[in-house]
Amino acid sequence: VEFFFDFASPYGYLAGTQIDALAGRFGRRVTWRPFVLAAAFKATGMRPVMEQPLRGDYLLHDVPRFARLLGVPFVQPPVMPMHSIAASRAFYWLEEDRPELAHFLALSIWQSHFGAGQDLGPPAAVAALAGRMGIDPDALLAGIEQASVKQRLRDETDRAIARGIFGSPTMVVDGEAFWGADRLGQVERWLGGRW
Amino acid sequence: VEFFFDFASPYGYLAGTQIDALAGRFGRRVTWRPFVLAAAFKATGMRPVMEQPLRGDYLLHDVPRFARLLGVPFVQPPVMPMHSIAASRAFYWLEEDRPELAHFLALSIWQSHFGAGQDLGPPAAVAALAGRMGIDPDALLAGIEQASVKQRLRDETDRAIARGIFGSPTMVVDGEAFWGADRLGQVERWLGGRW
Repeated sequence: VEFFFDFASPYGYLAGTQIDALAGRFGRRVTWRPFVLAAAFKATGMRPVMEQPLRGDYLLHDVPRFARLLGVPFVQPPVMPMHSIAASRAFYWLEEDRPELAHFLALSIWQSHFGAGQDLGPPAAVAALAGRMGIDPDALLAGIEQASVKQRLRDETDRAIARGIFGSPTMVVDGEAFWGADRLGQVERWLGGRW
Repeated sequence: VEFFFDFASPYGYLAGTQIDALAGRFGRRVTWRPFVLAAAFKATGMRPVMEQPLRGDYLLHDVPRFARLLGVPFVQPPVMPMHSIAASRAFYWLEEDRPELAHFLALSIWQSHFGAGQDLGPPAAVAALAGRMGIDPDALLAGIEQASVKQRLRDETDRAIARGIFGSPTMVVDGEAFWGADRLGQVERWLGGRW
């Protein structure tokens, strides 16, 4: 199972609280794949939901309601949409050598950002959080400025778009893409036996 | 329960095959409310999905897959998006005096359009279908040209947008809006006891 998302996406967060356990029930593991949603928006002509009349208001009502249904915390962060580039680069910087830790960092970023309402956009905020996980914050701050790490995020984004991914979250199960946190039920059904 | 949709919306069709029975399980009736989605798009800046790169391809794969899961027929119509103005006006023309029949006409339009792949965009196609239901096709063709019927559709569209509705389908339960056919499960949960 591949899990494509932008850290800035609250629906990504909601799905991220569920996807590992959901796949685990079918003995499957999940590869987390942050990408730059803004690049996909350039391809489709979409804009961030928060910048759209009507849709932004719906999101601000819908996300907390959805979170209550799932039983996960949601606190509206001060900046929406979040500037997610530092978080995404930090993920790939760490993933190179320590994929398990990168996965855990991603979960922690979302727990702080959407779970506790702390803005994890600034590189310093990501570094401080990583520091509390035993990751050298200065190494992280240097790492996310490496040309290879920047390129990695661009490559992952290009690959996602080339595979037709345009929204966050998108779950891909055996090549089958499901867009949206509200499709977790269909992902579960597909894992249980495609229809 | 209010059910807002544009006849051109395949996800509206999918939800429309389920919503009456779903609400009925909780002793509730559904008021169908076609509106002009293009007017909502003007408010939000969205465009029809079929005109968007990546998203159109996803829809053409996702809708038949979703239909199989629900066990309802789907045949891709020759024109997408459908020109839905005649269908929507015919609904309100009929609803004035015969709301039950208007509801049945709406179901029949979708059964033909998305269930059987016949283009129900042209007024003549709507009139012919209505004729097979015992409705005078000439009266319908005259009715959908009445200024009052045209105005009714504009008014219903304005009212929907004023209530924050921007997508098709949107189900409203006791003032709570749920956007998308993939939210039928949440509608069911809400009807069973809000969370």
